[in-house]
Formats: sequence, C-alpha cells, structure tokens
Amino acid sequence: MKPQTYQFIGCDTPYEEANTVIFGVPFDGTTSYRPGTRFGPSHIRNESFGIETYSPYQDLDLLDYKVFDAGDLECPFGNPVSVLDEIQNFTKTILDDNKKPLMLGGEHLISLGMARALVDKYPNLKIVHLDAHCDLRDEYLGEKLSHATVMRRIYELVEPQSILQFGIRSGDAEEFAFAKEHVMQTRFNTEGFKEKLEMFKGYPIYFTLDLDVLDPSQFSGTGTPEAGGIDFLTLITFIKDLNNYNIVGADINELSPIYDPSQASTALACKVVRELLLTFKGEQNV
Amino acid sequence: MKPQTYQFIGCDTPYEEANTVIFGVPFDGTTSYRPGTRFGPSHIRNESFGIETYSPYQDLDLLDYKVFDAGDLECPFGNPVSVLDEIQNFTKTILDDNKKPLMLGGEHLISLGMARALVDKYPNLKIVHLDAHCDLRDEYLGEKLSHATVMRRIYELVEPQSILQFGIRSGDAEEFAFAKEHVMQTRFNTEGFKEKLEMFKGYPIYFTLDLDVLDPSQFSGTGTPEAGGIDFLTLITFIKDLNNYNIVGADINELSPIYDPSQASTALACKVVRELLLTFKGEQNV
Amino acid sequence: MKPQTYQFIGCDTPYEEANTVIFGVPFDGTTSYRPGTRFGPSHIRNESFGIETYSPYQDLDLLDYKVFDAGDLECPFGNPVSVLDEIQNFTKTILDDNKKPLMLGGEHLISLGMARALVDKYPNLKIVHLDAHCDLRDEYLGEKLSHATVMRRIYELVEPQSILQFGIRSGDAEEFAFAKEHVMQTRFNTEGFKEKLEMFKGYPIYFTLDLDVLDPSQFSGTGTPEAGGIDFLTLITFIKDLNNYNIVGADINELSPIYDPSQASTALACKVVRELLLTFKGEQNV
Amino acid sequence: MKPQTYQFIGCDTPYEEANTVIFGVPFDGTTSYRPGTRFGPSHIRNESFGIETYSPYQDLDLLDYKVFDAGDLECPFGNPVSVLDEIQNFTKTILDDNKKPLMLGGEHLISLGMARALVDKYPNLKIVHLDAHCDLRDEYLGEKLSHATVMRRIYELVEPQSILQFGIRSGDAEEFAFAKEHVMQTRFNTEGFKEKLEMFKGYPIYFTLDLDVLDPSQFSGTGTPEAGGIDFLTLITFIKDLNNYNIVGADINELSPIYDPSQASTALACKVVRELLLTFKGEQNV
Amino acid sequence: MKPQTYQFIGCDTPYEEANTVIFGVPFDGTTSYRPGTRFGPSHIRNESFGIETYSPYQDLDLLDYKVFDAGDLECPFGNPVSVLDEIQNFTKTILDDNKKPLMLGGEHLISLGMARALVDKYPNLKIVHLDAHCDLRDEYLGEKLSHATVMRRIYELVEPQSILQFGIRSGDAEEFAFAKEHVMQTRFNTEGFKEKLEMFKGYPIYFTLDLDVLDPSQFSGTGTPEAGGIDFLTLITFIKDLNNYNIVGADINELSPIYDPSQASTALACKVVRELLLTFKGEQNV
Amino acid sequence: MKPQTYQFIGCDTPYEEANTVIFGVPFDGTTSYRPGTRFGPSHIRNESFGIETYSPYQDLDLLDYKVFDAGDLECPFGNPVSVLDEIQNFTKTILDDNKKPLMLGGEHLISLGMARALVDKYPNLKIVHLDAHCDLRDEYLGEKLSHATVMRRIYELVEPQSILQFGIRSGDAEEFAFAKEHVMQTRFNTEGFKEKLEMFKGYPIYFTLDLDVLDPSQFSGTGTPEAGGIDFLTLITFIKDLNNYNIVGADINELSPIYDPSQASTALACKVVRELLLTFKGEQNV
Repeated sequence: MKPQTYQFIGCDTPYEEANTVIFGVPFDGTTSYRPGTRFGPSHIRNESFGIETYSPYQDLDLLDYKVFDAGDLECPFGNPVSVLDEIQNFTKTILDDNKKPLMLGGEHLISLGMARALVDKYPNLKIVHLDAHCDLRDEYLGEKLSHATVMRRIYELVEPQSILQFGIRSGDAEEFAFAKEHVMQTRFNTEGFKEKLEMFKGYPIYFTLDLDVLDPSQFSGTGTPEAGGIDFLTLITFIKDLNNYNIVGADINELSPIYDPSQASTALACKVVRELLLTFKGEQNV
Repeated sequence: MKPQTYQFIGCDTPYEEANTVIFGVPFDGTTSYRPGTRFGPSHIRNESFGIETYSPYQDLDLLDYKVFDAGDLECPFGNPVSVLDEIQNFTKTILDDNKKPLMLGGEHLISLGMARALVDKYPNLKIVHLDAHCDLRDEYLGEKLSHATVMRRIYELVEPQSILQFGIRSGDAEEFAFAKEHVMQTRFNTEGFKEKLEMFKGYPIYFTLDLDVLDPSQFSGTGTPEAGGIDFLTLITFIKDLNNYNIVGADINELSPIYDPSQASTALACKVVRELLLTFKGEQNV
Repeated sequence: MKPQTYQFIGCDTPYEEANTVIFGVPFDGTTSYRPGTRFGPSHIRNESFGIETYSPYQDLDLLDYKVFDAGDLECPFGNPVSVLDEIQNFTKTILDDNKKPLMLGGEHLISLGMARALVDKYPNLKIVHLDAHCDLRDEYLGEKLSHATVMRRIYELVEPQSILQFGIRSGDAEEFAFAKEHVMQTRFNTEGFKEKLEMFKGYPIYFTLDLDVLDPSQFSGTGTPEAGGIDFLTLITFIKDLNNYNIVGADINELSPIYDPSQASTALACKVVRELLLTFKGEQNV
Repeated sequence: MKPQTYQFIGCDTPYEEANTVIFGVPFDGTTSYRPGTRFGPSHIRNESFGIETYSPYQDLDLLDYKVFDAGDLECPFGNPVSVLDEIQNFTKTILDDNKKPLMLGGEHLISLGMARALVDKYPNLKIVHLDAHCDLRDEYLGEKLSHATVMRRIYELVEPQSILQFGIRSGDAEEFAFAKEHVMQTRFNTEGFKEKLEMFKGYPIYFTLDLDVLDPSQFSGTGTPEAGGIDFLTLITFIKDLNNYNIVGADINELSPIYDPSQASTALACKVVRELLLTFKGEQNV
Repeated sequence: MKPQTYQFIGCDTPYEEANTVIFGVPFDGTTSYRPGTRFGPSHIRNESFGIETYSPYQDLDLLDYKVFDAGDLECPFGNPVSVLDEIQNFTKTILDDNKKPLMLGGEHLISLGMARALVDKYPNLKIVHLDAHCDLRDEYLGEKLSHATVMRRIYELVEPQSILQFGIRSGDAEEFAFAKEHVMQTRFNTEGFKEKLEMFKGYPIYFTLDLDVLDPSQFSGTGTPEAGGIDFLTLITFIKDLNNYNIVGADINELSPIYDPSQASTALACKVVRELLLTFKGEQNV
Repeated sequence: MKPQTYQFIGCDTPYEEANTVIFGVPFDGTTSYRPGTRFGPSHIRNESFGIETYSPYQDLDLLDYKVFDAGDLECPFGNPVSVLDEIQNFTKTILDDNKKPLMLGGEHLISLGMARALVDKYPNLKIVHLDAHCDLRDEYLGEKLSHATVMRRIYELVEPQSILQFGIRSGDAEEFAFAKEHVMQTRFNTEGFKEKLEMFKGYPIYFTLDLDVLDPSQFSGTGTPEAGGIDFLTLITFIKDLNNYNIVGADINELSPIYDPSQASTALACKVVRELLLTFKGEQNV
C-alpha cells in the first residue's frame, strides 16, 4: 500500500522518465503589501483535480505527456538570498538531467533564481514577461531583492534588449522611463505579440507569467489586483503561440488563494498550467 | 393576519390562476467536487427582492404575468433515484394542469427528472442546453446518475439529434468524441445560435441552463467555475430569442451561493429567472 | 514627532495651498437593502497605498498636484437631514475658498448635499451621472430622502434638461417613464457620450459617479450589483474626456468593501479617484 | 397548492388561535458602527430549521405550543421615528388580541417601540435587560433616538427603579455614573440574578435581550462584540427562571449574521428563541 | 527524486511496518443541512503541519510511533451503500493485517462502515460515542442510511447496552425516549465518564468522535453547531483516559472546514488526531 | 483645516507632553505558516473607535492619560536584520526622552528589537512572556532570526533566570527540555502568577504578550491558533496585577486580522491595549 502523493493532475510520471518537472516555491517573503502567494502551489495542486486533463483549446491531453511534479521547495522566510539559491540549484539539477522546469510561485522574485540557472546554461537567454507591473525598480524600501525589482535584476543578467514585456499597466514614473530605454514593453495588453515574439525565434526563452496580468474580474486572487488587464482567452491564445518557440523554462506566479473566495482564480491558474504544459512538446523538448 | 410567504418577487399569483409554476430543488447529492447548490433556490428567492420586476431589456414587467412560486421539493440526500421521481411527479402535476414549469436547482442532475415528465407529454421533445461542461459521461465513479452524466441520460430519452449544446468548454476526450457524433455542440460560446435554434422551430423545447456557461468573472458562484465563458448580455440575447420558440419547460441550475460572497452571481441569476419568465408568453400563457 | 495622518496617497498638500479637497462621507443610513458603503472612504484611503501615484493612462502623476484630504465628516445615523446639511456646509466652505471638492461616499443620497451647495454658487449647474440605477423615484417606502430618490431631488434643483445619465439598467417602469420626459438617459452603456457631453460645454458640471455603473465582474463591491455594466477602460476613457469640461465638483460613491473580499473593487475605486483628480487641472487649479 | 410560508420552525399556528406572536424588525438604521442586524430576523427563520423543536434543557417541545410568526415589519430606513411608531402599533394589536409579543431585531433601539405599547397597557411595567452595553446615553452624536440611548428613553417611560440590567461591561464614565443612581445594574455577569428578579415578582415584565451580553466566543455575530461576557448555559438558566415571572413581552436583538461566518451565532440565537418561547406558558397562554 | 506525499504530520511509516493506519473518507452525501465535511480529511492533513508532533499533554511524541497515512477512499456521491461497503472492506484489510484503523470523516454515517468490519472481528464490540446529537432516528426523510440514523444502525449491530453516549444535547423527543431505554446516555457533558467507561474494561471498543460534541466557541467548523458543548481540555482528558482501554478502532468526524474561516477548528482537530494516536500504544502496538 | 490623524482612540497627546508612546511594526516577514500580522497595527487603530476609553475593569479612563501614537515603522520585507535595527533605534529615542514604549505587532520576532534597546538601558531587565508557544528554538529552517527563535535570542541578552513564561502549550520536545533548565515556565495557564511575578519586584520588566496565549475561542485571529488557552478575564486580571510592577516597555503581538472575520479578536486586542495603557501610571511611569 502506497501513500497518497500530492501532484498536479496527470503529472505522475517518475522523475527519471519525465520530460518536464513541475515544482512549487511557496515563498512570499518580500511581498510588501498583501502576502499569501505562499499558498499558491498547494492550492493549484488541490484544485487541479477540478479540471480535466484534456484541453479543448489545443485538442491535447496531459495524459499523453511525461511530467513529474516534484512538490515544493522549503523556504526559510526572512532570507530571500538562500531561497534564490535553492531555486537556482534545483533548476540546475533539472536542466542537467535534460528536463524542462516549470515553477509555480509564490511571489515574482523567485523568477530571479530560475533565470540565474537558465542564463548559466543559455547565455543568450531571452525573456517573455507578462505582468501588470513593470517590476523594474532598482531598489524597493532600500532592498535590492524584491518582487518589485525582479525584472531589473534579471535585466542585469541578460544581453541588451532581451526582455519583452506585455500587459504592463502599473509602475512609478521612473520605471516607465527605464522601460522605454531598456526593455521592449507593450502597455495594457498584448497587441502585436505574434510579431514581437518573432524576434526571439531560435533563441532559448524563459517565459515568466505574473498572473496579475489578467484582469481582476477573471483573476481576483492576487495581492495587487490592477484593473484593466487582459482576459483568459487572450492569454490562452498567447500561450498556444509559444508552441512555435523554444521555451527552456517557465514560471507562473502571484496566485494568492486567500483573495480567491470562489476559487475561480485558482481553477483558472490550473488551466494555465495545463495549457502551458501542453506546449512543452516537439523536438526542442526532448 | 396571514403568514409571510416565501416566493420569488412578483410570483404570487394563486396556483389555480397561474400560467407558470416555479419550484426549487435544493439538491446537490451527486456533486463530486464542491457542494452547495442546494442553497440556490432559497438564495434566489431572498435576493429576488433586490431586483426590479421591470426589465429594461424586454420592456416588460413581471407584475403583468401570472406566476406561482410553489416553494421547494423535499430532497432525501443520499437517494438520487427518489429525488428524480419526486421531480418527475411534480412536473407531471404542473403539466397536467396546463401550466409551464420552471425549476430552480440545485445540481444539474435534476434536469433528468423534468426531462422524463416532459418526454412523457411531448415525445418529440428537443433540448437546448447551455453549459460549460459536456455532462455526457456514461458513468461517473461507477454511477449512472450524476451531474456529470445527466445529458447522456437525457440523450437516451429523446430522438436522435435532439440536443443542442452551447458554450461547452470542459470534458474528457471521450465526451467530446461522443458529442461529435450524437449531439449538436457549439464549443466555447453561442455563435450562430439563432440559425441553430431554427432547427427546433415548431417543436416543444426543454431549455436547461447550467449557469456555469457564464464566465466566472460574471458568475463565480458555482462549484466548478470554468474560465472563458459567455457574458451576461450574450445570455440575455439568447433568452430573448426564445420568445420565438415553444418552450414547454425550463430549468436554471448550479448556482452555489457559498462561492458568491458579493452575491453578484445570485443577483444575476435572479435577473435570468426574470428574463426567462418574461419570455413565457406564448399561447398557453395568455 | 508628528502623528501619522490618514490621507489618500499623494494628497497631503496643506489645505491652504491645495486646489482640490477630498473628503469622505461614511453614510449609508437610507440604504434599504445591503448596507456597508459607510466603510467606503476609509477603505479607499487604506488601499490607496497599493496603487501608484503615476497614471500610465494619462501620463500624469498625482505628486504634481495640490490636493488636501480632509478626512471624513461625522454622520449621525438615523438623521439624513442633518447629514445633508453637514455636506452642504462643508462643500460651501471649500467652494468659498476657491477649491474644488471631491466627495467619497457612502451611499448616493449624499450627492444631494453637494448638489445644493453647488447650485447655490452655480445656478446653471449641469449634472453628469453614471449609474446602474435611475434613482428617480419620487418616494421610497414613504420617504423623500433616499438613495433611490436622489436624482429626483437633484432634478428639482436644476434647470430643465440639465441631467445626463449613462449606464442605466435598473429601475421600475415609472422611473423609466419619468426619465424619458425629464432627463437625457443612455441605457446600458455610455454610447455616444462624447457628443452628448458637448451639450454641457461651457457650463459648470457636477460629476456624480455611482460605481455600480461598472459591471459586477469588475466591481462586485457594492450593495446592489447589476449585471451588464460598463468596464473599467470605458470608464477611464469617459473620465479622461472630462479634461475638456468645467467640472466644479464631483463624487464617487457606493463602494461597499464588505462585498469585496479580494479588495479588487476597492483598488479599482482608488484608481478612479486618481484618474479623476488628474483631470482637475483647469484654470482654477493652476 | 399553497405557497411556502416563511416562519420560525414550529410557529405556524394561525393567528387567531395563537397565544404568542413572533415578528421581526429588520432595522439597523441608527447603528453607528457596523450595520447588519437588519438581516437578523430572516437568518433566524432560515436557520431555525437546523435546530429541533424539542428542548432537552426544559424537556418541552415547541410543537405543543401555539405560536404564530407574523413575518417582518417594513422599515423605512432613515426614519427611526416612523419605525418606532410601526412597532408600537403592531405590538398594540397583538396585546389587544390578548396575545404575547416576541420581537426579533434588528438593533436595540426597536425595544423603545415595544416598551411604549407595553407601558400603555401595563403602567407598572418592569424591565429585565441583558446586554454588554449600558445604552444609557442621553444623546448620541446629537440624536435622542439611537441604539446607544434606548435604555435611557425607556427609563423615562417607567417608574423609578424599574430596570434591572445584567452583564453590562461597556459604556462611558457618565453612563456608569447614571446607572449607579437610576438603574439596578449587575456588571460583567448575572450574579445573584434569582434574588434580584424576585423584586419584580407579580409585576408585568418586559424582557429585552441584547445578544451581545454573551461572550463573543459563543456569539461573534454582532456589531460590537465585547470580550468577557456570559456563556450560553448561563443564559439558558436565566431564561428558564423566567418561568416564574409574568413576562408580558420580550425581544431578542443585535444578531448580525454577516459577522457570523460559521452561522454558530445564528443557531444559538434560534435556540434562545425556542427556549424563551417555551417559557411563555403562564395563565394567558393556556 | 520522489514525489511529495500527502500524509498527516509524522505518519510516514511504511504500511508494512506500521501499527496504526489513518485513512480519510471525504464523504458527506447524506448531510441534509450544510455540506462540507468532505473537505475534512484534506484540511486536517494540510493543517497538521501547523502543529507539533510532541504533546505537552501526554509528554509523548508522534515521531516515536509507527503510523501510516493511507490517504482517502474514493467516494461515489449519491450512493451511500457503496461508500459504506468500501469503508468496511478497507477496515477489514487493516484489521486482517493486525493494524489499528483511525478514520477521518466526512460525515458521521461513515462510522457504520467501520462498525460493521469491527463487529465481524469483535462480536462483543462496545461503542464510546461523543456527539452533540443522538443520531438515533430510525429513518430520516424516509432514508435508513443517514448521518441522523447512524447510531441506530450501529445499535442494531451490537449487543444490548453496548453504547455509551456523551455530550448529547440535541435530538427530537422520540430519540431521547429511545435513548433512555436502549443506550447509556450522558446529556450535555461528560460527567462521570471515568466510572462509566469502567463498564467496558476488557472489551474491544470502537471510539467514535463527532467533533460537534465540542462547544461551537472552540469548534465552529461543523455543519450543525450546537451551543452548550464541552471544551477542548475536557475532551483531551477524556482521550487520555482511553489509554486504559482496548480501543480497536476509532474515527473523528464532522469537521467542515468551510465554516472554519480562522482554521482554528481544523488545528484543534489535528491536535485531537495527535492525542488519539498517542493513546494507541496497547499490546498490539508495541 | 488639519488632516485626519490615525491614532489609537484617546492617544492624541503631542509627543512632547506624552508619558507613553505607542507605535506599530507591521512586519511578519519570518512567519513560516500563515502570514497576516502585518495588518495588526492598522486594524487595532481602526477598531479602537469601537471601544470606549473608560474601563469598568479598572475604573479608569484613557482620556486621563498622556499617550502619543506615533504610527507605524516602515518595514523592508525580506530583511529582518534592518527591521530589528529600526525598532531598536526607535525604542531608544523614546527611552531617551523618558517615555515608555508600547509596541504593536506584527509577528513576535519584533520583540527582539525592543529587548535590545531596553537591555541597553536596563542591564538587569526581566521578561514576562505570555504565549502559547515556547519560541525557544535555536534555529528555524536554518535561520537564527525567526518568530520561533525570538525568546532564545532574548534569553541570550539577559541574566540567567530572567524570563517568566506563562500559558505555553506548544513546542517541540527540545524546546520544552531547554525551558526546563533555562526559563521559568508555566504550562497551559497562568496559575500562581501573582507569586511568580513577586520575584521580579523592583526590577525593570519587559512585558511581551503574544495574543495567541488566549484560547482560540476568544482569539481566533492569529496565524497559529492553539486550543486550550487562557480566557480574556484571566488575561485582564494578569494585566491589572502589573500595576504593582515597574514595566519599562511592552508589546502586544500576533493579531492577524485576516483570520478574524467577526473582528471580535481585534476588538479584544484593543481592550488589551487599553487595559495595559491604564497600568502605565504612578511614579515609575513619570
């Protein structure tokens, strides 16, 4: 008799045989406003059993994929440096074993840990970033490591003009000024995304998805809801287009279940995980 | 001095004089995931006093209609067979008295009870079904009677190609395969609904509305919210079009008030009840 | 050492130097259905620190404006007459000091207090009113002073055809009949608003915004959510157009935080306050 | 076919045959802090079906009593004067028909309406008052009619030393000073209540129960929870002792269901209603 | 790399080596009032990581015990008969392997399944039952299998006078009459429990704990909270006394997390599980 | 016209004239389980207007005291070291100005900052600590600075046997072993506290109150509720006894408003703040 495991629906391939590895980072230690994204990974796993493995959007079934869900990293709150180290190391292990990592947040700062590991392997890494917020501050309340500075830190890791941002609609004046010079930013929505993504054709891409890019009507379960976002079908269309690119790692972050009393945001996040996993196929994935 | 009655707003015509009879079925006994639709009927009645009887959409007023609200059937939980019998019998009584039934759920399985009574009276019954889910499984966890199998059971009662489904966006691969052969299914939305409904012109129609066909942004108060649904105005347009058809019975199901902390979903459901009642004005109503 | 103040973000200019004065009226004493808008002003202040002072919609920053937040008026519940007097007097003080008032509700009845003060100063005052409800009843449960009668009372203060209503989608048959004759009403949405506003060019305008004009998907935090409303971006577009007009006073009302568990409605209201303040830059502000 | 009625469990005797009449007053129009007691009566009715009619505390069954539940009075919010008039008139009708009234609040101010009617019939009326608060202010925010002044107003109606207060643990210094001279107050608990009640032996007694006399651990569902109150069994013991007295009217007030997410407070309130009804069996009931 | 398991804290001994086996039954299919206990087992597991394995009450540590957590049984809602069969079979397996079963509910009906398996092995089985409710109805809404009839069904399985009930404070008059003749019932509390338990010395005992025996102040997270219950320390004292008896099986049921917004009830349930496990150290465990 | 200030009720004496200074530390950055105490200070201020300034427990009125509420410190999340520095510095300023500090948490780690400043001024400082948890771990998840280690860190600052703990009922086996040797610990309750406090007569005392020492029935609003705690009146009795001692600093921590849906916990915390402030008098305070 085996103990019950705790894995995203349909993600129970043994590690050794898996092509993709999911793991959670239940960390929100630098969240300055309303915490709670630490509960994101466990809620996503729980609610995943409320969705189907089959996607009518892509006519694909997760049961035909080989995914291992590794559970959550342990996070020493109060110490973002060591949390980032842990993420970097775990990502490296996955990459070294020729598997593709998908990280579930947690707050957005965690993307820095995965970005470090990816850049080590892929120095010409490109970033596709969906978010309501610039996240481009240099410091926040005197700190360099923060959910509000994460894209600035990642910016420092990659080559110039390697970041594509979509959906941005909040930031201070300085961040928007910085963005104008240093990143390729699409405000408010994802207009022209197909053309813009073309630029990254052939490059290894890190896809980092802050779910608050969605309109709060569809995704209220986040700490800083920003009115005027994109909708679910737009996001799905975007994700389906990633089938044409070489995604070498991805994360989905900022679900805060405590602000999701109907659990509709969590269910939506589960579908996003499913749809994203379904794009992890073809040659570049094996 | 009379006791206070407990009826949907404007639905206090005595039974004998009424053309339409509302009744509730507070049953969610086969709900496998998150229960709570048993509270749907009472919340709809309570909240109905927060809406007006006048509809600016149809320029009609419920006060000009003759509707009796019969209250709720008593539901022995743990015994779906007898719940379905009770619904069938009650519907039969209403039909025998030449009135039109409108049932408030409760979970979707209850539609099977009403379908049985309607088919008895109208052997050529057609079904118009709005839902996020196929509900076409043959069995669910070994059970034949379930919210997830209800349309399959109804399918077995009616003539071939008698079911029109709209808004479907969730199911397993097998259900979608079955749908392709045996029902007329519109995925994701209600596109082309006017043309499709034309097929049922002249037939007696059972209109079964699972409210989760709506996008969770507008209707979060349901047990299995599915992102990517239709919006309220689309649904109202659909319902107004039913004025052109011979609706012989209808139900509205799957409101789960516990997942509706703002009560916006319940208020919306009340409006849908009102709009649907306002379409009940064919020959048999005057 | 100074005590912490309690002001909307970026609104800490001393009264004497300010061009604009915000104040709250935490009153919901005539609310007949679900109370709670009394908590609107304090929640808006609290949540305002979750938004930025910079608007990417208008490319303007609240930090460049001179606004004083005066806090809340004290409201004797059970006595709407004296609450309205207090509002009228306070508004008069602000107007006498050549500043522009922005009032945060509370329920919609409070607009009557400000309207009285504005009409005293500007006898040819025009009203731009966004709302889901007509608010045109002559009496409600026998009372003349009510959230449901407020526009009727204001109608009695101003010249004929001085009220423009947008977004209206609920009322009884009588109200809609009254509206047809006496106010300029756009049902359901804001279609053609640019042309319609032109009529008021050159006039002093009172802008009264009942936030329930928004669709409940984006703004569930209100006592009487009405499906089928306008969306946030439509509202922002509308507000930006006010830059072309002489707004002499404004209010934003009917946020009820208790029905906003995710606080997304409150955050949205904060942005609306910000965007509206950013339009307050006519002659008397510079 | 009869419509469903809306009555407290077991309280469906026709008015003409009933000895006792329950009615609700869904009014909280002077509540200065957190409103919501307007929802008390309907929630008590709804939840009453979750309790039994039989009391193991008194070994009596409500089914053996003759009680009529008259539903709720209609309350024009914003006008406490007319609400009190309505209560007074309705109570008078009940008294004139030789029945005993039990009123469900709503806020505590409503007791003034019933007290007026009772004093008219019983000029030597005595008051037994359980509450966390003195409610003895002369004015509150300039108003004479308020939940915070109700006992002061009732004090003015009755003979000197006719008020017994129990459980009081909150008030300003002035109220406690007033209480020392003019009412018989037991602070914090109900110690010695049997002896104290003896004083009122033979007199007609109005029993007014503000449920916030209970400790918030057992009764959190109220607008102003005050730690350090009495417990349920103490209250039941108190109520059982009322069997020895001539209770000519009673009320139970200040349940605010919105602060009772587990509904445990509402269920408790239902039991208190049941236990109190079970003591209504003196001469005039048989 | 192993997948994360999903087990109660400290209960990760492999099945083969374990003395005790925990399993969950997430079933509430006959709950007639407010469902939700189906979420009990998963919430208990999740929250178990918020408590310590060490008990200062017994000075024992769960880490020194050998417990296997088997996860949850799958429950076909709508079919209580097959759910009970599944429980009976699973319990039999555990007993056949000479391990002790601890079942986590779920609603109380599930105890019937375990009782059947235990009686098969121990025909002279005795029952110790803590509950707020008699659960002694013969039928409920026409059904024999119900949370409200479970003790009646168990009564039919065992020898006369084999049931000890404690804490009972709700039921209809008939149930209490039945109890007087056929079970040994202590109303309201656990008075004299030590003496009463002595009767069962030497017998195999099934301990069935409906957590609603606790006062709702300490345990609000249940579908039918009944004021006037026992407190946590009284329950712990009771459980510690079980060290002196031969407990051959046990269950803990009726936690409904949805009515436990602070999660304090769930945390308490976790401690009860821990304390109960710590008493499982008789002969067959060492 | 002055802006509204944001201060605990009755605490508006100017800093210069005040004897006592309240300040908040909205920090929960090392909370490993359920965060949210960062919202404690603001909720305590908001809810303080729901309590009276007069205490019937001590017959004293806060209006007769001189207290300044300084608002909240700014907390860089992710950096506990600098948060503690900020607390230490701010406390030092208050002490240097011969005022007494009362800190509102936030999580318990913040006590370390205040302890450092107090020990600097009073090397023979004694600690009176009420809590459900030992907080005596040497490390937690590898970190030295954590809510779970705070008393161990404070232990390292003071002389041997300078810590009195009350109410402790949770910890791992090692912590309890450490406690036996190095601190004076009373488990489960406050038995004998008067005698034990006598030991610290004449010494400067730091009173640190983790509100989770209270039973969750009375105080559910905390991240780690532990059943079996003390009640409000016991705590008030304890606090009143502090009148006999030289309290040189104090804090009240671990209120997490998000787990307090009825706000009863917050109201209780406000009263505890009031009662504690009322003990800050007499010679040793000036």
